[in-house]
Amino acid sequence: MPKTNSPNDGIALICGRANPGLGEEIASFLKLKPTKVQAGQFPDTETHIQIDKSLRGKDVFIIQPTCAPVNERLMELLITIDACKRASARQVTVVAPYYGYGRQDHKSTGREPITAKLVADLLSVAGADRIISVDLHAAAIQGFFNFPMDHLTAVPILAKYLKTLGSKDIVIVAPDAGRTKMAEKYTDILQWPMAIMTKRRKGVGGIDLGSYHVLGDVKGKTAVIIDDVIASGSICKEVEILHKAGAKEVYLSITHPVLVGQSIELLKASAVKKLIVTNTVPVPKEKLKCGKIKVLSIAPLLGKVIYNVHHNKSISSLFLKEHLVFPV
Amino acid sequence: MPKTNSPNDGIALICGRANPGLGEEIASFLKLKPTKVQAGQFPDTETHIQIDKSLRGKDVFIIQPTCAPVNERLMELLITIDACKRASARQVTVVAPYYGYGRQDHKSTGREPITAKLVADLLSVAGADRIISVDLHAAAIQGFFNFPMDHLTAVPILAKYLKTLGSKDIVIVAPDAGRTKMAEKYTDILQWPMAIMTKRRKGVGGIDLGSYHVLGDVKGKTAVIIDDVIASGSICKEVEILHKAGAKEVYLSITHPVLVGQSIELLKASAVKKLIVTNTVPVPKEKLKCGKIKVLSIAPLLGKVIYNVHHNKSISSLFLKEHLVFPV
Amino acid sequence: MPKTNSPNDGIALICGRANPGLGEEIASFLKLKPTKVQAGQFPDTETHIQIDKSLRGKDVFIIQPTCAPVNERLMELLITIDACKRASARQVTVVAPYYGYGRQDHKSTGREPITAKLVADLLSVAGADRIISVDLHAAAIQGFFNFPMDHLTAVPILAKYLKTLGSKDIVIVAPDAGRTKMAEKYTDILQWPMAIMTKRRKGVGGIDLGSYHVLGDVKGKTAVIIDDVIASGSICKEVEILHKAGAKEVYLSITHPVLVGQSIELLKASAVKKLIVTNTVPVPKEKLKCGKIKVLSIAPLLGKVIYNVHHNKSISSLFLKEHLVFPV
Amino acid sequence: MPKTNSPNDGIALICGRANPGLGEEIASFLKLKPTKVQAGQFPDTETHIQIDKSLRGKDVFIIQPTCAPVNERLMELLITIDACKRASARQVTVVAPYYGYGRQDHKSTGREPITAKLVADLLSVAGADRIISVDLHAAAIQGFFNFPMDHLTAVPILAKYLKTLGSKDIVIVAPDAGRTKMAEKYTDILQWPMAIMTKRRKGVGGIDLGSYHVLGDVKGKTAVIIDDVIASGSICKEVEILHKAGAKEVYLSITHPVLVGQSIELLKASAVKKLIVTNTVPVPKEKLKCGKIKVLSIAPLLGKVIYNVHHNKSISSLFLKEHLVFPV
Amino acid sequence: MPKTNSPNDGIALICGRANPGLGEEIASFLKLKPTKVQAGQFPDTETHIQIDKSLRGKDVFIIQPTCAPVNERLMELLITIDACKRASARQVTVVAPYYGYGRQDHKSTGREPITAKLVADLLSVAGADRIISVDLHAAAIQGFFNFPMDHLTAVPILAKYLKTLGSKDIVIVAPDAGRTKMAEKYTDILQWPMAIMTKRRKGVGGIDLGSYHVLGDVKGKTAVIIDDVIASGSICKEVEILHKAGAKEVYLSITHPVLVGQSIELLKASAVKKLIVTNTVPVPKEKLKCGKIKVLSIAPLLGKVIYNVHHNKSISSLFLKEHLVFPV
Amino acid sequence: MPKTNSPNDGIALICGRANPGLGEEIASFLKLKPTKVQAGQFPDTETHIQIDKSLRGKDVFIIQPTCAPVNERLMELLITIDACKRASARQVTVVAPYYGYGRQDHKSTGREPITAKLVADLLSVAGADRIISVDLHAAAIQGFFNFPMDHLTAVPILAKYLKTLGSKDIVIVAPDAGRTKMAEKYTDILQWPMAIMTKRRKGVGGIDLGSYHVLGDVKGKTAVIIDDVIASGSICKEVEILHKAGAKEVYLSITHPVLVGQSIELLKASAVKKLIVTNTVPVPKEKLKCGKIKVLSIAPLLGKVIYNVHHNKSISSLFLKEHLVFPV
Repeated sequence: MPKTNSPNDGIALICGRANPGLGEEIASFLKLKPTKVQAGQFPDTETHIQIDKSLRGKDVFIIQPTCAPVNERLMELLITIDACKRASARQVTVVAPYYGYGRQDHKSTGREPITAKLVADLLSVAGADRIISVDLHAAAIQGFFNFPMDHLTAVPILAKYLKTLGSKDIVIVAPDAGRTKMAEKYTDILQWPMAIMTKRRKGVGGIDLGSYHVLGDVKGKTAVIIDDVIASGSICKEVEILHKAGAKEVYLSITHPVLVGQSIELLKASAVKKLIVTNTVPVPKEKLKCGKIKVLSIAPLLGKVIYNVHHNKSISSLFLKEHLVFPV
Repeated sequence: MPKTNSPNDGIALICGRANPGLGEEIASFLKLKPTKVQAGQFPDTETHIQIDKSLRGKDVFIIQPTCAPVNERLMELLITIDACKRASARQVTVVAPYYGYGRQDHKSTGREPITAKLVADLLSVAGADRIISVDLHAAAIQGFFNFPMDHLTAVPILAKYLKTLGSKDIVIVAPDAGRTKMAEKYTDILQWPMAIMTKRRKGVGGIDLGSYHVLGDVKGKTAVIIDDVIASGSICKEVEILHKAGAKEVYLSITHPVLVGQSIELLKASAVKKLIVTNTVPVPKEKLKCGKIKVLSIAPLLGKVIYNVHHNKSISSLFLKEHLVFPV
Repeated sequence: MPKTNSPNDGIALICGRANPGLGEEIASFLKLKPTKVQAGQFPDTETHIQIDKSLRGKDVFIIQPTCAPVNERLMELLITIDACKRASARQVTVVAPYYGYGRQDHKSTGREPITAKLVADLLSVAGADRIISVDLHAAAIQGFFNFPMDHLTAVPILAKYLKTLGSKDIVIVAPDAGRTKMAEKYTDILQWPMAIMTKRRKGVGGIDLGSYHVLGDVKGKTAVIIDDVIASGSICKEVEILHKAGAKEVYLSITHPVLVGQSIELLKASAVKKLIVTNTVPVPKEKLKCGKIKVLSIAPLLGKVIYNVHHNKSISSLFLKEHLVFPV
Repeated sequence: MPKTNSPNDGIALICGRANPGLGEEIASFLKLKPTKVQAGQFPDTETHIQIDKSLRGKDVFIIQPTCAPVNERLMELLITIDACKRASARQVTVVAPYYGYGRQDHKSTGREPITAKLVADLLSVAGADRIISVDLHAAAIQGFFNFPMDHLTAVPILAKYLKTLGSKDIVIVAPDAGRTKMAEKYTDILQWPMAIMTKRRKGVGGIDLGSYHVLGDVKGKTAVIIDDVIASGSICKEVEILHKAGAKEVYLSITHPVLVGQSIELLKASAVKKLIVTNTVPVPKEKLKCGKIKVLSIAPLLGKVIYNVHHNKSISSLFLKEHLVFPV
Repeated sequence: MPKTNSPNDGIALICGRANPGLGEEIASFLKLKPTKVQAGQFPDTETHIQIDKSLRGKDVFIIQPTCAPVNERLMELLITIDACKRASARQVTVVAPYYGYGRQDHKSTGREPITAKLVADLLSVAGADRIISVDLHAAAIQGFFNFPMDHLTAVPILAKYLKTLGSKDIVIVAPDAGRTKMAEKYTDILQWPMAIMTKRRKGVGGIDLGSYHVLGDVKGKTAVIIDDVIASGSICKEVEILHKAGAKEVYLSITHPVLVGQSIELLKASAVKKLIVTNTVPVPKEKLKCGKIKVLSIAPLLGKVIYNVHHNKSISSLFLKEHLVFPV
Repeated sequence: MPKTNSPNDGIALICGRANPGLGEEIASFLKLKPTKVQAGQFPDTETHIQIDKSLRGKDVFIIQPTCAPVNERLMELLITIDACKRASARQVTVVAPYYGYGRQDHKSTGREPITAKLVADLLSVAGADRIISVDLHAAAIQGFFNFPMDHLTAVPILAKYLKTLGSKDIVIVAPDAGRTKMAEKYTDILQWPMAIMTKRRKGVGGIDLGSYHVLGDVKGKTAVIIDDVIASGSICKEVEILHKAGAKEVYLSITHPVLVGQSIELLKASAVKKLIVTNTVPVPKEKLKCGKIKVLSIAPLLGKVIYNVHHNKSISSLFLKEHLVFPV
């Protein structure tokens, strides 16, 4: 475990209001006391930030996934960056394990925004110097920044857990064409077979299930649908399809648990065996009560990366050594 | 009234979700049909924007005060600007009659942000080319932009209405030191006397009322407290103080009605005669039921300014001619 | 067909040395005479550019795919942009139907560049104002630019041709996970079934062919492998695999024919029926002699888009109307 | 007193020609030898700068208030910054205790510049990394910079001296509406009463004195008019008005003594008891001969701030501890 | 002569205080009425600018050589640009026929500024969109700008006059190595021989005259020393040397008459026959009294260029046609 | 010799493919092991770079002259900078002893690029922080950068060698007007006489040799033609002219040996005694076989400068002390 002799050796950790639990875990991992921040909403809904302790010359890490409510989280992050910059921080690193608006990474039709790029520009103009994130929706988002990004993946953490399921005949399922590459990351580690689902196309072949098609063999198998985000829970539809296609049981292995709206109800009602996620995004206790969610902690990974970034140590080599997690 | 021969002559009006009523009024004033926008929230709270019609080569005006909920309104505005820019608009003008975060215009203590400047930078990086706003909290916010700002004032509109009150012995009251300059704008037009309230200082002189002091004569007079914004309604405290100081009746004349929290209840409970505001920020019907609020429309002023900006006509000269409103 | 009354009405077309044939076709489509450019190499290998006619106030379109030799093509493009900017062009649009370095769109391991973003930054700093490109390797490259990009696709052109093949039982094949989305574009138009190939994974399932796997049904069918680029011709390996997997005949449908090295020899030697490409990248006559290549012209598409961009007409609506090509 | 072991430990002090006396005092306070600069005017009036010693990797502080002749001082400052940047200084901090053009902080009518913002942009583009200034005309000028500003105030220094005047019945007077907030800073520290003068308005109330009005009680009292700058000495008119309004004696307490034109003659002729200023701007000996000016040194404040900035120590905490001066 | 139908057709001419006579001549040439500007100095030496008429959408040309006093002229120019930009000018072109600080175009020793580049950056950040200048000290200054520069030369105008001198045996003399290229421009037009002076080198050869050397033949000839600027008049020393070297008579042909200090006295005292200059920089009447100065007007050249820039006409072709002046 | 205790103390040396020999020499001088880079060309001609070891927090020096093939060398340099920046290097210094495109430093006619400036902008946007170069074609190229440039000269190295020639009657010859200043650098050190060649002018005087003219005395002397670059070898024409003008023998002393095309054949065929160059650009062994080329190493100079830059030591003082090489 990395040792930091004093909580004051040039590093400062700021935990935003998006995921205080994760912040505490990371701080504890790093044996650091986070810098306190007075953060709140004025009656007129404006966000107010004031940092309690001097940041002059510090290497500041702000832990703030931009999860729901995304506009509130993002604006708080931008305002905190501005405060750090004006308070003479030496360097400001955004630790946003979940990168909100990541799915709006290109125009899919005319007159749309590319909000994932806009967010990158907002972070840059506010004064961020680098960013750490996990399982971006599209890898090319790295290129939206002109400063360094450490793009991590939670797939090894999730894959390690999947190995403990004990099933013998498992297939990794990409729920749509866009996730095929992520599915390959799983199959690279686990050496399990893969299947791909496609929707809304007629006559595409494979197993035909209404408007869905499954390319690859799932019959009688334990299927693990993988994805980067679960938001409204509409993936429960895919669980049902896989069962119809003959899958024995279905797991979900998803990095970011943005569980909004009726998602918990849908999970409960569905035949899904278990939803395995990380804590990049906080899952409140009442949601955990549904009994179907397993949360794996990303905090040790982020803690190690923050430690290495601050001490100018390689991140690639660290992870290769531990055979655990690969930067992407 | 300015005439625009066709709704399609190179100008495009986009009405954001912050103040659709104002947008409609302006569109009607300009005899223009606003460009439709599909604007909404995804289940995961991310804002989605798509513009219905081509904006190629258009002079686009986006009407969106950044009032409460300010972070939602601001992000929607930024995303809309991004969509317009990528859709090849010739020029994007932000019409934000209320400039949210305007009160965070400087650091009043260490390690604070200057959010009013951050907002200016966000608008610039998103792709805005110019901005039109009304009664900024601090005039120097104009300098936060490197592109042109048309900074308008609603004081002549409000002052014109105050003249109709029929009272003979009226005093304009600045509720604190920061508003003295705005009070002078009223007295310049109305040629009425002025008083200033100060708080939280001991032994400051003038009429002593607990922790408040009134410099200038209010006894037996009709007092009009002026301000740029009313948010939580805490100004009702000042109304009470003025009554204690002998004021006969008290009006509020305030540009931006950001009426949040208990503000309506406080207004009802207070001795205030009437709150006079403009519609830079929408006042929902249920709030108007309290019977104490008079809303004056800023739409004709904004309509004229948009017209002149689009047609490269002077704004200064227009207003001097009409002896009505002065740009600031 | 769009009519331009005079070759001199504010538009200027510059044809770089990368694809003069395409430039001529576009100019002829637009009934425009390209602006002559003295372009050459000094003895010390430095590129020299001088433009023959005044560009003051012109809307300049530079046609230059950044195909092999990519560094020469790109530097010539950058230098031409610089010359146009300093010659007071009103607007400089890069027409790069093939976007070189597009495959280096993210870091796939530590200490790599993101050259696709670097290229975007180089074009921006040189003075480009907008870009038109076709079938980018990753759609998110659109977001690498802060100015408008018109991202077109040749898939409808290629798909239209595929329909004429006359085969009845055709399957569209994505040669790897990254091309699944492009395969869906074909199946959306053609309503044919889809298959996906994966390589280098053990035990992935589907049809096992050495280190390759095919998800989906190809047996006895006509297979069309789709891709964005063919460079060294290594895709002939996939052709062979499909035949082993039972495909009756195999076509290649690929937008950009960057046919380098032994690619023509590999094509000749392989069992591929036909390689269908567009002329975003020039295919020299001696390569065409192999008899297996069908080149479809992208010039009318680019001509219409240039026309509409110059005249501020919608690109989306144009293509929807013609049911032919969709911008992406 | 802060100790710096060697004059060479990474800090470099450059004293411009605007206020060499202040530079020497600060250097002596910091026990540092300033870096010599060959600064002069060529016969054609161009400013020439050459720095004598290497600045590679140094933390450079340039002491140069931009007082009269402001354009000469500002250009010398900009050129010095350029020389430092090109000489590989690690960081360049502008120490401009007086910020020239600060009063042009917004457009007060059409077609004016915002020169205070222009100056901020000039300093930024020249290569400055941070700025230290004292009693800005408008606090929002902080937001004109995208790098950190340490905005200090001399009010505590001036207030401390005012306490020694021995008068019992003193009133702080804001000479116009714009200075009300500065007057509150004095009353916050001194707990004395406040009055406000307004001019050029008819019938404004309070004590009527020609075109002036005084809100608040000054009769029989010692009045201290406060301000940020004294330039041409027109404030002597206000001194006269206060005497007419019954003030027993009148002091002036003003941070920046930009004493130009007839100011000294006006001071001599007026009934002002004493003008108390700091040395942010140099007061030449012949001006001091008038016997009415008390100069307090700002050098220890600036010296401490430079020390803390260089050593990454908090500035807020320092001043809170000493109960002396507050950053703003 | 170009005709402009109305003074109001989208162009606006602003004449700064540096060379009002030149401004008037250009305005008269263009049949335009300049836009009035209230320009002055506040008592504290700050420059104040206000523009009288609306500039919205105008193509603004600001005529202001940055001659002595250079810092005053430059700051006035920057502030005027800022005012134009904030007043919504469509485009701002700086017409600085003399580019002050042009001789500080590179570091000639360590820790010097490159002020000519700094000036370019200041103009850019203030908001200039293009620049027109005459006979820059170094041609590479063009590259200091990222926007278009029209770099003109007065050599054809001066050369045309030299032809009228009637002498038969004339030699063009470069006063130092740096001016050899400018001397070649003269000899290209006039087809006269050339000589070069070098100083401060021992044993360099040629005619040895104390610390000076003349390469080339001047004996018994009429010598014309050419240069870009005459400032303090130290070139009179070279006149003397040429006489010692046997020259029959000596003329000076110099673009920019920045005649400062004792220059007029030196001219009077020297054996120079005539100093031929242009009016890029104003020569006051009392200086002309010395009888040795011939001023040629650059106004028609600048007028034509402004006309062509505004109307998007070629500048190169114009001058080629008239066989008079070449852009460089 | 500077000592670096460990190859790993915060500095990283990257040797590009342009001049590996020079890189090795510098590394050996600095007792450093260069960081390995996987650099290559993909089959489609795209350059690929991957850096072997972590650069986090390192002070990186990339040795890459941008000599022929210049576009390949420059793109490799830009891509390497991008990789370093994204790999979190603390600072990236470009060591380009030969600055390609340096001769395109201004527009010499209309509608040309200023490619030397474009290159500076490309390096800046890619992420370079400083640059070291030798004998730029125009000194003003320093100003094309907004970050520090250490501009070195090889003249003292070449001059020192010239002294060893043993000739008694030597003249330094500038081959054209543009090199006069460089010739003065030689004569400043060597105190030898100077001559200047001009071409393509009729009747310019001096010794007339067809279209060439020689100002200054070369008869019976050893002539040394100096220049910054030798590319195609056209300078052999000037050698011939000097011989016709009576020179006894002719040497060439040229910093950058970009020996392309027929240059070696021309050298062999000409009467030139010896070509003295440095190794800023590599001279392959087969070219050296011609026996007329003497290569002097620039590696110790570059090594010392890199050492001093990394250790924040003065470069000016170092060279003054050694009486050997002066930065310019």
